[in-house]
Amino acid sequence: MKPDSPLLVVGSVALDSVETPFGKAENVLGGSGTFFSAAASLLTPVQLVGVVGSDYPMDQLSALAKRGVDLAGVEQAEGSSFRWRGRYRHDLNSAETIETHLGVFSHFSPKIPAQFKSAPFVFLANIDPRLQLDVLRQVNKPKLVACDTMNFWIESRRADLVELLKHVDLITVNDGEARQLTEKANLVRAAKWILERGPRYVIIKKGEHGAFMFTKESVFFAPAYPLESVFDPTGAGDSFAGGFMGHLARTGDISEANMRRAMIYGAALGSFAVEKFSIERLLEVKPADIAKRVAEFKQLVAFETEI
Amino acid sequence: MKPDSPLLVVGSVALDSVETPFGKAENVLGGSGTFFSAAASLLTPVQLVGVVGSDYPMDQLSALAKRGVDLAGVEQAEGSSFRWRGRYRHDLNSAETIETHLGVFSHFSPKIPAQFKSAPFVFLANIDPRLQLDVLRQVNKPKLVACDTMNFWIESRRADLVELLKHVDLITVNDGEARQLTEKANLVRAAKWILERGPRYVIIKKGEHGAFMFTKESVFFAPAYPLESVFDPTGAGDSFAGGFMGHLARTGDISEANMRRAMIYGAALGSFAVEKFSIERLLEVKPADIAKRVAEFKQLVAFETEI
Repeated sequence: MKPDSPLLVVGSVALDSVETPFGKAENVLGGSGTFFSAAASLLTPVQLVGVVGSDYPMDQLSALAKRGVDLAGVEQAEGSSFRWRGRYRHDLNSAETIETHLGVFSHFSPKIPAQFKSAPFVFLANIDPRLQLDVLRQVNKPKLVACDTMNFWIESRRADLVELLKHVDLITVNDGEARQLTEKANLVRAAKWILERGPRYVIIKKGEHGAFMFTKESVFFAPAYPLESVFDPTGAGDSFAGGFMGHLARTGDISEANMRRAMIYGAALGSFAVEKFSIERLLEVKPADIAKRVAEFKQLVAFETEI
Repeated sequence: MKPDSPLLVVGSVALDSVETPFGKAENVLGGSGTFFSAAASLLTPVQLVGVVGSDYPMDQLSALAKRGVDLAGVEQAEGSSFRWRGRYRHDLNSAETIETHLGVFSHFSPKIPAQFKSAPFVFLANIDPRLQLDVLRQVNKPKLVACDTMNFWIESRRADLVELLKHVDLITVNDGEARQLTEKANLVRAAKWILERGPRYVIIKKGEHGAFMFTKESVFFAPAYPLESVFDPTGAGDSFAGGFMGHLARTGDISEANMRRAMIYGAALGSFAVEKFSIERLLEVKPADIAKRVAEFKQLVAFETEI
């Protein structure tokens, strides 16, 4: 696999209104596809597929285009954009959803542009598993397919989701979703349950408590970066996935050693995402900032077993 | 500092009755001093100071004596032993206290035996900060003093606790206690607040989510071991402290590099403690088991920043 392979992502492109203990933002760029692209494009070219309404501020997406996000797959449809309104109280680990308007997203049927179909790395962000499966029918044997999901699909589309597991190499879920999907309270057992159903890699994200990557033979843990100020946790998980997949696509290397390194890139990009509202901080970050933070992660867990 | 330095611990020696989703235990060995000693004595000689009632099963403590815990400081007083009854539901991270009987512990006034007063390593387990301060008046300039505390003392003895901070090198607290003591929701800020008040090292324990060690210049993170079965979390924090201090006393080395390694010994001993009720598992563990688990921790976080 050659480096700087294209990375295809299919996900939501939304407008978020967020309130945290530190401030408010109205109608800012949001959605899993948006956060993923903003993070991954710091590392590799990204191809984004999604849908927005006729009210979407397309000029704001141009910041992503300038960074190497190909927007040819972002369809603008008649109607209103997907909007999410949420609030975080002092426990920044859990969002309270105030309002969700699906708008044009409720009829989303991803059409992968011809020039995107051969992307060797594919990320199916959190959308209906039936659509995730449909995307996989449109692409040409990618080298690595990863997916995300959420509680809503685990409840309403369990059979499709279990079918999807057979067709992906890797899944990212948060700890609550892993427990809900597998009905196992213990995360090691939950990971085993998922590994038995298809994916070779299971990433369980624990927000401010870091993330595990399980295979049948091994387990890796990436801590979360100990930030002094977490401003807005929205999009941290998608930015983590963007950093993770971005590193894999950039290097073209899917060895376990490189997947571990990718976890740290994920943790680094997730840690930047939460420092400001929306994708603001991700738009500012420079390659040197990423290299510095990855080195800090190395120090954070560094110890020698021998004296 | 020579290796295998004596390690003095002052703490509670109790009888616990515990119910978890996996079983029940009645009147088993418990208390911070007991768990600490059981863990630390796997690594170094321990000197335990505490009080028990006339009803205490002293023969059961003999298992600790055989392992190198000097019980000369365990006073047996007229009256009933400290008893704690608690329950864990499916969230094994938090205990629900059903009953606490302080018994003879309510009049505990630690008397450090003459032959214990020169221990170079001292751990003040979770007792009244006034008593912790009193212990420090009895000992001869230890090389390193660490303390623990809990929500009860943070509420009822805040001034004494803040005074104690001036006299210890290191404090271990859990995340909730750190927030309560410092009134900072963010753990990095909480650690800074404590570091400004005396200790050179602040360890913040997050249960199943691992533990941080902060200094003014650095931060280290030790993950928790991803166990497939957590049987009974009681005593995990005290066993962590025992592993941590036991490693320091065994090696006689208080460099930051060795403190980091000690964090991993702490995490390892904490992970064994929760595999069975009471100190059962700690009594079975062999040096080879510890070495194996420490090596597994190394693998758990191993990654290279360069390709």
